[in-house]
Amino acid sequence: MGNDGTVLAGSTSDDGIAAAREAGFHAILEKHLAGLEAPSGLPVVICGMAGSRQGWKESGYLSVPAELDDLWRHATQVSGLDRPVTILPGISQAPGQSSDVMRGEETKLFGASMEGHGAHSYCIPGQHSKWVLMAKSQVQGFRTFMTGEMIDVLSRQTILQHSLEGAAEVEAGDPAFSTGVRDGWLNPGKLTNTLFSIRAGDLLEHRSPDENRARLTGLMIGAELAGAEPGTDGVALVASGQLAQLYQSAFATCGIEVRLIDAEIAVQRGLFEVWRALVSAAYAHARNSRS
Amino acid sequence: MGNDGTVLAGSTSDDGIAAAREAGFHAILEKHLAGLEAPSGLPVVICGMAGSRQGWKESGYLSVPAELDDLWRHATQVSGLDRPVTILPGISQAPGQSSDVMRGEETKLFGASMEGHGAHSYCIPGQHSKWVLMAKSQVQGFRTFMTGEMIDVLSRQTILQHSLEGAAEVEAGDPAFSTGVRDGWLNPGKLTNTLFSIRAGDLLEHRSPDENRARLTGLMIGAELAGAEPGTDGVALVASGQLAQLYQSAFATCGIEVRLIDAEIAVQRGLFEVWRALVSAAYAHARNSRS
Repeated sequence: MGNDGTVLAGSTSDDGIAAAREAGFHAILEKHLAGLEAPSGLPVVICGMAGSRQGWKESGYLSVPAELDDLWRHATQVSGLDRPVTILPGISQAPGQSSDVMRGEETKLFGASMEGHGAHSYCIPGQHSKWVLMAKSQVQGFRTFMTGEMIDVLSRQTILQHSLEGAAEVEAGDPAFSTGVRDGWLNPGKLTNTLFSIRAGDLLEHRSPDENRARLTGLMIGAELAGAEPGTDGVALVASGQLAQLYQSAFATCGIEVRLIDAEIAVQRGLFEVWRALVSAAYAHARNSRS
Repeated sequence: MGNDGTVLAGSTSDDGIAAAREAGFHAILEKHLAGLEAPSGLPVVICGMAGSRQGWKESGYLSVPAELDDLWRHATQVSGLDRPVTILPGISQAPGQSSDVMRGEETKLFGASMEGHGAHSYCIPGQHSKWVLMAKSQVQGFRTFMTGEMIDVLSRQTILQHSLEGAAEVEAGDPAFSTGVRDGWLNPGKLTNTLFSIRAGDLLEHRSPDENRARLTGLMIGAELAGAEPGTDGVALVASGQLAQLYQSAFATCGIEVRLIDAEIAVQRGLFEVWRALVSAAYAHARNSRS
């Protein structure tokens, strides 16, 4: 990124925490930076699982209520490298209500909250979808739904796999997807029953794998929307690509007003704002030391 | 079994449908019968997945409303063997309401209904738990919940596995089990959120794998009980062993009256009654032919 937050170059890969633990987090980082021809000494800000106990360096959690403007204050430095590397903390919600944790989404939220125009409710879909209640830039509470991971594991590891073999990617406009969303939204408490009815419907009526996969995906997303109990004043959806389309379609099916915030842009903005705060603090510190 | 239904000898194994497809259903059957020193020509009655499309010989389904007294009429004979082998049909519920199928449970139900003293609601827990609405020996409708399979797959294939590693078998008296049951029973529509809180609770409070596994198991069973919407006139629980204990404990936690019917005895009785009906019909047929 340039000094004004403009993205100058980017690199993505599937190197997750398992790959990074094997190859080394530093090696993976430098591989990407070399691919971008990044200047030596370029500072790096990191969010997500690199800050977990199994990550590069544990960076702890902010507890709710958590002020996102404070993320930079609780960041961890990785020392001994030839560039500044900063890892951001996650956010935790202690028990009493319901234990929960996030790592990475806090940075997306930070960026999204600047465009959120005062939204209260944020939905960040994914393997572990996060639903967050915000007041300005303060996280007041949140809930994780294992939607993406459950869709994966149900599709590949249960009896439902026989009804989904060879299915194409789910499309947001597929009527079977909407049927699934409606079933999940209206009866989230019968989830494991409705899931089995996908298998039974296939046995009795020979439905196509595409249709079964669309129903399964819709069902899990619809149940998430019901369980999250979104209020009547709309939801800010922080998502990109196909996931954004599926969730927008699901929100429409359930009659919930939604405003889309691009997740890629939100995380870039969040990382940049943290960096700007770190630099300002360093300058202020230097100024104070001189005076 | 003797002529009066007394069990003379028994043999069990883990040979499921995959093993039987590989070794051959006939070979597996004869292996067990040889181990019991069963006389040659001894008739065999079979229920369950051997009658499925992937089984030994497809035996179809009775549609609801289904009269269990009629099971024998719709049985399939495996021909060309040196003993009579009869495979019972399953029961299907066509769409409209909710597509569903059972195979094997109909025979347990047949046996259980003789001891059910007019019960309306039957719960047969397992990998795919069945909840059945009965009027005398007629199946009026049923629902399958993927409880056992979901517990398995969540424990071994999702992020929850890290919180359950090395956990002991769940005990029915474990308070963590009851906590899970209560959470699932009160909030079945937040299942995938409450599941994740097991992981988060472990990260934040370092709970034991035993406790986490008990919560997970309780949660899935509690959500099943809620989704099944048992009436106020009690449920007949058809189960054996550890599963019977867990479900009895869960029913007690949710304040639902339950009467236990041993599943092993029920299936033996169901198989025997089918056999008796087949023999009676054969005699009647022979008598009619003579007269």
